Amino acid sequence: MGFGESEEQLLSKVATNGGHGENSSYFDGWKAYDRDPYHPIQNPEGVIQMGLAENLLCHDLIEEWIRKNPAASICTEEGVSQFSAVANFQDYHGLPIFRQGVAKFMEKGRGGRVRFDPERIVMSGGATGAQETLAFCLADPGDAFLIPVPYYPAFDRDFCWRTRARLLPIHCDSSNNFNITTSALEAAYHQAQKSNIRVKGILISNPSNPLGTTMSKQTLQILLRFVNEKRIHLICDEIFSGTVFKSPRFVSLSEIVEADPTIDRDLIHVVYSLSKDLGLPGFRVGVIYSYNNAVVACARKMSSFGLVSSQTQYLLGCMLGDEEFTSEYLVENARRLAERHGVFTAGLARVGIRCLEGNGGLFCWMDLRALLKEETVEGELELWRVIVNEVKLNVSPGSSFHCAEPGWFRVCFANMDEETTERALRRIRVFVNGEGEEVKMMKTKKKKKNGWDEELRLSLPRRFEEDLVLTPRLMSPHSPLVRATI
Amino acid sequence: MGFGESEEQLLSKVATNGGHGENSSYFDGWKAYDRDPYHPIQNPEGVIQMGLAENLLCHDLIEEWIRKNPAASICTEEGVSQFSAVANFQDYHGLPIFRQGVAKFMEKGRGGRVRFDPERIVMSGGATGAQETLAFCLADPGDAFLIPVPYYPAFDRDFCWRTRARLLPIHCDSSNNFNITTSALEAAYHQAQKSNIRVKGILISNPSNPLGTTMSKQTLQILLRFVNEKRIHLICDEIFSGTVFKSPRFVSLSEIVEADPTIDRDLIHVVYSLSKDLGLPGFRVGVIYSYNNAVVACARKMSSFGLVSSQTQYLLGCMLGDEEFTSEYLVENARRLAERHGVFTAGLARVGIRCLEGNGGLFCWMDLRALLKEETVEGELELWRVIVNEVKLNVSPGSSFHCAEPGWFRVCFANMDEETTERALRRIRVFVNGEGEEVKMMKTKKKKKNGWDEELRLSLPRRFEEDLVLTPRLMSPHSPLVRATI
Repeated sequence: MGFGESEEQLLSKVATNGGHGENSSYFDGWKAYDRDPYHPIQNPEGVIQMGLAENLLCHDLIEEWIRKNPAASICTEEGVSQFSAVANFQDYHGLPIFRQGVAKFMEKGRGGRVRFDPERIVMSGGATGAQETLAFCLADPGDAFLIPVPYYPAFDRDFCWRTRARLLPIHCDSSNNFNITTSALEAAYHQAQKSNIRVKGILISNPSNPLGTTMSKQTLQILLRFVNEKRIHLICDEIFSGTVFKSPRFVSLSEIVEADPTIDRDLIHVVYSLSKDLGLPGFRVGVIYSYNNAVVACARKMSSFGLVSSQTQYLLGCMLGDEEFTSEYLVENARRLAERHGVFTAGLARVGIRCLEGNGGLFCWMDLRALLKEETVEGELELWRVIVNEVKLNVSPGSSFHCAEPGWFRVCFANMDEETTERALRRIRVFVNGEGEEVKMMKTKKKKKNGWDEELRLSLPRRFEEDLVLTPRLMSPHSPLVRATI
Repeated sequence: MGFGESEEQLLSKVATNGGHGENSSYFDGWKAYDRDPYHPIQNPEGVIQMGLAENLLCHDLIEEWIRKNPAASICTEEGVSQFSAVANFQDYHGLPIFRQGVAKFMEKGRGGRVRFDPERIVMSGGATGAQETLAFCLADPGDAFLIPVPYYPAFDRDFCWRTRARLLPIHCDSSNNFNITTSALEAAYHQAQKSNIRVKGILISNPSNPLGTTMSKQTLQILLRFVNEKRIHLICDEIFSGTVFKSPRFVSLSEIVEADPTIDRDLIHVVYSLSKDLGLPGFRVGVIYSYNNAVVACARKMSSFGLVSSQTQYLLGCMLGDEEFTSEYLVENARRLAERHGVFTAGLARVGIRCLEGNGGLFCWMDLRALLKEETVEGELELWRVIVNEVKLNVSPGSSFHCAEPGWFRVCFANMDEETTERALRRIRVFVNGEGEEVKMMKTKKKKKNGWDEELRLSLPRRFEEDLVLTPRLMSPHSPLVRATI
């Protein structure tokens, strides 16, 4: 359903300007999966979901902890005496045990090299809410943050949609493994100035989504010098910090900030979440850790729009306070991720597919430049359609991450079991070994204009936008597991 | 801490314009409570919190259900097999059992006279998030919604702060028990037009917070005719619908909308929450129920900023699906509220204090006009300071609800036990019977300029704004129970 002129008047500009960004190939891939989801028994030829950065490798450890600690839940015989107090708790500072637990876990995820003050922990509805809150705190409509490309597609929604802030690219490419350079930083800044756009800061993700790499200390220092000199903000999204599975080790922004007294702390803000490191995206735990007192105060007021359920705060507060558990968890999580990453990249290497050398995240940045018919975004999307439609793997094209260089794809590997991983690798092998055939097929299809290509670009929550078949079933992206059981 | 010029440049206008509205006497009263909270044993002379519209009367029923239904929690031996699927569930449509349960509960709370389609249930972070989401969907910056006064103070934060929308008053007063009249409605609309402000709709709460009354069918029909004629929206906040404890019965907006095919459904939006009827504000369950498909689609995309924790969705989905339980709960909740309301208003009546005749909500609208020294806002606030400071009851002055008529106060009665209720009534009796003395005392104090009056107006999360005493303890409003146990 489109919006007629009268609808546009009835609703706001934000509601009708498409700023949500759901009409991108990143989300379209999820849609393709939704139409024909892989299931080992019921639909073994379906699309395998490799477009979701989920971590399902360590839920068994959390389940075991839950079984052993029934009092941590207010919904057990052992814990129900706390029900009333917890259910009634709506203080936007959050439960002390929750903030203390999160601070401790953040410290542990950074090798104990830094300290986090629980009083600076501000809750938000996932990292999604955290990014929006920071944008509201720091930027007026029209103001911009610089951001290295490629970057997480939903940053446009999170940071810009309702705030009317902007993200402007810092050019990065494969010539130096997509690292940020001083010249690229300066160029982006001056480009903005030339266009009369006020730059209020820089937004980075470390470890990078989609690259799966961590930033070096040197790069972080370049960024810190730059923001200090221009007196603009630096927001560092560290939601994948606990997924670093091999060297070089993760260097957190806080580590450098704590060591260097010349840095203006009022400019420094860290975003964290439990969605990736603990694999709990459904619990909606986002965190803003700002070194700026006014931002802490303001973000906390804004957190009223997305507080974490006190039921969830209480459970996680108890869990993260168990340091023996969290220590073991982080080690085992890294071990399992390393193993899966090894299996996956080795499988790709066997058919000559190379990935950017990664050390963290739940995905690889896969180089398929050699398979492009032409080095353009359209060429990349043609190849992507073949991968989704014929190879039946939902991977995400680099262009959806605003990557300037065609031919890169993000492939997630931690949201599936071993068997599915093997099946995905097998499909890739068949595709690459029979590549000539596949590409020929694709060309034939293109001539036929079979309509599928055009049709794919549809937005996600189609129920109200296309038709009104109102059946109570799951429609949007999630793991097959959820679909099966609830 | 104020903001220097340089701070203002560093942060956004939203962060520095004070639009959050925390500097009002409504929140100041909470602060006074925070300084000196009543406790039956440890601090029997402390301030009794009557400024929080919380419902603690029926938690025992919910606890009993939880004990009997361990599988409803993913944190029990019986339910943990669902842990992984639920923890990983981040679909913004919400768990089907959750949406179905909420829809059923909303139907039951409206006497089964209307049907709610689970596909139209959009989650939000409490009613707070619901109001903001609707404002973002319907209003551009500068656009206005009309709202009858008195109204819930935090609507300014929820509806206006980050959206830059406006609320313009519809004048109501005690001459007709604060009912909305056609002439007041027209006057507010024309006043806005004269000021070149675009009116996008009307926002009402039914049952009314702070009045504790429900709107008649006739009033709702007047409002519906008005929005239909002007083609503007009607948002009805029905978060207290399950607290109506005596006749006249609650008439929901949906009941009239369903019966009248001439109403343009694209203009109709209902806000609901489980914070009041079930007494679960900590769980952050807000709901938007819109009859406009485009608003459902857009609000659902926005819900990503404040999804309900899937752990909480699952528990409540199971609980609200148990119709035997919810039926009994609603009856017993109304019975206990009626009883408490009866005790409280009878106690006030014994010393000649009258309240507006109420039939719902968790509060009374208390008429203290006879005790005012002068019929002004300042006169009201003087009396209020005596009540908070000397009588040691945190009640909320009408002016903080934008009431145009001085001398009315909102007093909450469902957030405490019987003993505390009796103590509060005793304090009121002493105050009123010895009123001359009290007022004399107040005047003496005023002459002395002891500083307390001035000092009271402080914003809430003082830790970062005033000083940096960073001790991990609870600071902001909550029940004494929470303070005691977590």
